[in-house]
Formats: sequence, structure tokens, C-alpha cells
Amino acid sequence: MAMNKIKSSKLSGTGEIDLRAIVLAGGSGTRFWPLSRQRSPKQYLKITSDKPLIEETVNRIKGLVPNSRIYSVAISSQTRILRRLLPRLPEKNFLVEPEARNTAASLILATAVIYLENPEAVMIALPADHFISEVEAFREKLLRAARAAYEFKKIVMFGIPPTSPATAYGYIHISSKHSKKVDGEKFYKVKGFREKPDLPSALEFIQSGDYYWNSGIFLWRADTFEENLREFAPELFSAWIKLLSALRRHDRREIARVFREIPALSIDYALIEKVTGSLMNPGNFGWSDLGSWGSLYEYLPKDEACNSSRDRLLTLDARNCLVLNPGQITALIGVENLMVINSGDALLICKKDQDQRVKELVEKLKKDLPEYV
Amino acid sequence: MAMNKIKSSKLSGTGEIDLRAIVLAGGSGTRFWPLSRQRSPKQYLKITSDKPLIEETVNRIKGLVPNSRIYSVAISSQTRILRRLLPRLPEKNFLVEPEARNTAASLILATAVIYLENPEAVMIALPADHFISEVEAFREKLLRAARAAYEFKKIVMFGIPPTSPATAYGYIHISSKHSKKVDGEKFYKVKGFREKPDLPSALEFIQSGDYYWNSGIFLWRADTFEENLREFAPELFSAWIKLLSALRRHDRREIARVFREIPALSIDYALIEKVTGSLMNPGNFGWSDLGSWGSLYEYLPKDEACNSSRDRLLTLDARNCLVLNPGQITALIGVENLMVINSGDALLICKKDQDQRVKELVEKLKKDLPEYV
Repeated sequence: MAMNKIKSSKLSGTGEIDLRAIVLAGGSGTRFWPLSRQRSPKQYLKITSDKPLIEETVNRIKGLVPNSRIYSVAISSQTRILRRLLPRLPEKNFLVEPEARNTAASLILATAVIYLENPEAVMIALPADHFISEVEAFREKLLRAARAAYEFKKIVMFGIPPTSPATAYGYIHISSKHSKKVDGEKFYKVKGFREKPDLPSALEFIQSGDYYWNSGIFLWRADTFEENLREFAPELFSAWIKLLSALRRHDRREIARVFREIPALSIDYALIEKVTGSLMNPGNFGWSDLGSWGSLYEYLPKDEACNSSRDRLLTLDARNCLVLNPGQITALIGVENLMVINSGDALLICKKDQDQRVKELVEKLKKDLPEYV
Repeated sequence: MAMNKIKSSKLSGTGEIDLRAIVLAGGSGTRFWPLSRQRSPKQYLKITSDKPLIEETVNRIKGLVPNSRIYSVAISSQTRILRRLLPRLPEKNFLVEPEARNTAASLILATAVIYLENPEAVMIALPADHFISEVEAFREKLLRAARAAYEFKKIVMFGIPPTSPATAYGYIHISSKHSKKVDGEKFYKVKGFREKPDLPSALEFIQSGDYYWNSGIFLWRADTFEENLREFAPELFSAWIKLLSALRRHDRREIARVFREIPALSIDYALIEKVTGSLMNPGNFGWSDLGSWGSLYEYLPKDEACNSSRDRLLTLDARNCLVLNPGQITALIGVENLMVINSGDALLICKKDQDQRVKELVEKLKKDLPEYV
């Protein structure tokens, strides 16, 4: 198999890296109701542009990773929509999970598939439903991170410099004194993790400067992943070995059986947080996990009154509003901090600071009007 | 021609009155945008119920005035929609104006048509786009007002007890010491009119107790109307005579010519305000001229959080909102005093206290996006 050459004039060294990307395409979400539904989760929504988030995710690495080396991983019921949204990926790259079992199982499967092709390949694990505003910065950092993962044989992750004492995120604790460099870019040694801290802790984290939000974007060599499983997650390592064997034999039934053996945990919890010696690079590239309508608004382009809309919008004294109402003209008079979302069968109007309550609304709908969930 | 008998156990006397109704079906309005449009003015909108206002107007007098004695008056381009909305009216009762010329011309034409059938007929001039919440009270008062118009041979009007010092209305000034009675119902002598007063005057009016809002609902015998034209509006009287003559000869061209001669004024300005000796009855029947979305909200049924919607509505901490969004479910989170109006091609979200600005919005649309006007 030919190696994919990645070179950059800004990168020193001329090593050739077989770079691959795994788009984590599973998962569902209710916080983007009424657009997100059980059958149409967030990654399929056109909320940051006229393209679905998953397509944006793939476009973002265009030219860095050839289509032939981009994989998606999701349950079989999503394969059809994935093929439609990502038509340039080869058929064999749509990795099918026997059931939805969180990201540990997804990434063990995907890494095993790639390991069998090239144990030295560097994989990027990419959540399909995030937003990145500074794409060029992201691409440059991704290349250096791939180099770091390849050369240092460590798990490499992006940590987002926190802009608020968020209590809903996981934090990466680094040692600012211990770092390695690739082309001047620092990769700090990870000291530990803190999932969803309380507010006083989060405030301390921000002040210390040694804590970053966990972006969920990871890079590793396939053989590094194997090494880390062996050393830090022995139960998973035995599943890994069985999976490699079943994959070699194309034994679909055995693949499914082993897959189901893997605990339904996030890769963070099952592996990343147990590993010592991983590296973190600060991800200053306008990242958002788009956790709610309000967080989406922060990253969208706005007019001079801070209203954001891709559709026809007419305003009289309206400010700080997010409007997603395709196919209609929207007129706003005297309102501010509103989110107006029209899905065709449902219209949501929500005060921006209460966007977390969309979840509560969906719970109410589940009971009363399940056809809208 | 047989007379229409109206009797009520509450009415004394057994006189027979030939009662007719003229529905003033013309007129356009922009204050109910996005529902009201140039081709779909307010009277055709389903905003107080699932029936258009004009249909509600006719239903309100059901049984009091037989369909054969209900007339509409509007320009020819509206006749088709009127026939569709009011299918029980006989074809000949759709009076067609050669052009839109305000209510003086409409009512001179309609009264002349009826005069030729029965000069003693009592006519009710009914705006097609008003709302009345207490229909039974209205019907009882209407019968007594018809009796008053018939017996006293005066123009009779309903004055609405003012609930605020509105400066956009016309006020009727009455003499509370001079009244006539029909079945205990008082008909006060009208002393004068004040159109759109300034706020200090409006406040004085309210305190005095002798001022009422002009509802635009009038009753008169056809011969009383003729008498009043002769005495108080001689220029109009000559048009009246010519119109009667042309109508007798079925001379459509002459009818149109005379109609166009009539100044394009409201009946209030052209006649009512000039007449002395008219009578006013207090119209305590939940009247609204539905001048804006906000005034509509006041009269609609509401839930315990004071939200009003005929469609599926789901709320979390939402209060005092008016929602007209047929065909969709609407979800409101954390908002109050909003009006949400969906016309299919346009969505309006307006703070309730700024509903007067809808007009301003329509002016903006006329310039920029005339297809939405």
C-alpha cells in the first residue's frame, strides 16, 4: 500500500506519515431540537452553513487526508445517510458498528482496521458534530500534531484554552514545564484529567493556566494505541487482540461478538484518562462542541445588530438574535437575545440564556407528543 | 315585499321592522402583516377564530337579519372572495362599487338600493373587521337600537365606553341629561364628535364620562338617511337623488358616474359628524376594532400563563404571548409579551408593546421586498 505523503514547508523533517481520519458519526442529541431528532441527530444538521456538520468536518481536512483514508464509524441504520452525505468515501471505509456502544468501542474497531493495514499509520479521531472557525490554523496544527504522534509515539490531543469556567466540560491538566516541540509548536505533557468540575474548581483551573478543555480530538499511531491498551487498559487489550484476529479472518459474527464485549464507555474514560505520558497541544482554532443553540450563535457571522441569520431577515430594533428559518422571511420587532428555529413541523422561540432547557422541552415532548422527538 | 319581523320578549311594542345589514367589506390594512396583504385584507383573515372576520360579522347577526337582507359592499375585485366567504347571501346582495371611495360612497349606494325597496327599512352599517366578545349583549342592543332608529327617525350609533385615553380613536360627545329610552335602554343625544384628540384631551374625555369611542356601527332608516343628507350634506344629497334615479333605470354607467362624483370621505366625516340630533347607545359588548395584533390579543382566550394560541403550543416559562402558527407546533422557552405570527411565507416576531411598528415594517417591505406586502 502506498503511503500518503504529508509535507508542509513549515514542518521540519521529511518523514512520510500515513495519515488517516476516523469521523465519529454516531451519537444522537436533543439539544438542537427542533432540528435534531431521533432520526436526524446533530451531525447531520445544516446549522453552521448550508452543509451538514459531518460534511463540514470532512471538508475541513480536505487535502490533508485523502478521501480513501477517511473512515466513518456508526451503526448500520446510519450508513445510508452517511453514504449520501459523504459520497466521495470508498464503500469499505463506512465502518459499521453492530450496535451503538459509545466511543471506546468505535475507536478500538476503527484503529484495529487501520492497524491491520499499517501499524505506523497516524489516526485522527474526529467528532462529527463540532465547529471550528479558524480552519487554516486547525489544519496547520493538525499536521504538527500528526508529526508529534508519529515521532513521539504518544497519544496527542488538542486542549482548548478555556474562555469561561464551564462546569459541563472535561479539563486536561498539563505540566507547562514539560513539553516537546514540533516546528516550534509545543506539546505539553498531560498530568491528568478532571471531568465536569464544580464551579470553584473550574475557576481555579482557569486562573492556573494549566487546564484546558478536552476537545475530543485525538491523534495516535495505531501501534501506540495498541501499546497504551496493553499497558493501561488490559481488559480492553484482550478484546483488541480478539478483534484483530476476527478482522484478519473477516469473521463478521466474531467481530460483532467481541465488539459487544467492549464496555459502553467513552474513549476518554476507558483509555485516555488512564494513560500517562500523553501530549496536549493548545487548540487555538475557534473550536466549539456546539453544545446548545446558544453556543452555536457565538460562532456564527452576525450583522451590525448582532443578529445571525442565513435567511431573509428584516428587523426593527432587534438585537442578538439567532434565526434559522429557511424558506420564509423573518421579521423581528423590538426583541433581543432570542433564538428562532424553524424545522418545518415545529417552531422554537427560546430566550438565549435558557437554551439548556431545550432538553427539558424534549423530555416533555417525549411524554406528550412523541412524534415531534 | 314581505317585511322581516323582529320581535323580542324583552322589547315592548310589536311593531314590525324591515331590518337590513350592510357589511362594509372593502378596505385594506397593513397592521396585521404578515397575515394581511394587499390581496388579503384584515376582514378576510381568520384571526379571532377559525373563521374569517367577515364571516364572524355575518354570523353575529344570524337570526336577527335573514340572509336575504344582508348586503356586502366592496369593489368588484373582491366580489369573488366575498361570494366564497358568504355563500348564503343572494347574488344581488353583493353590491359592487365602481372603485374604492371610502365609506360615504359605499353607504350612500347601499342605502339608496334599500331605499328603493322600502324607505322605512332600518339599516345596520357593519364594519366587517371588528371583534365583539359578548355577542348576546350585542344582539340585544342591536334590536333595541333598530327600534330606536325606527321609532325616533334618527341616526343611531354605538359608542364604546373608553377603557383608555386612546388618541387614535374618534370620540362621540353626548349629553348624559338628554336621552330617549327603548325598553329601559338609554339612547343619549349626541352633542358632537372629536377625532383623534391629543392625550390631555383624551384624559379629560375619560374623566368627564360623556365621551365614548366611535364604534363605526350605525343604524338608520333609509328615509332618515335621506332626510339627513338633505339637511346636513346638500352636495351629497344631489348625488343621492341622481343615484336613486340611475338605480331605478338600472343604468349601470350612470350609477358608476354618480358614485365617482361622491367625495372619497368616511361616512363619519361626510355626514354623521354634521348631523344634529343623532342618538348614541353605550356599546358594552366587548368591542374591539382590532387595530393591531396587540388589541387582538386582549380579546382572545388565554391559558393560565396568559398565552393565546389556537394551535399546538408547548411552553416553559413563557407568558403573555400571542401565537398564530397553524400547521406547526410552537415551543416557547423563557419569553414573554411576544407576538408570533406565521403566514406561511413570512414569520413575524414582535414585542407586544411595539405592535404599532408593524406598519413601519410594511413600509420598509414596500421598498425592499414588495412581494411580501
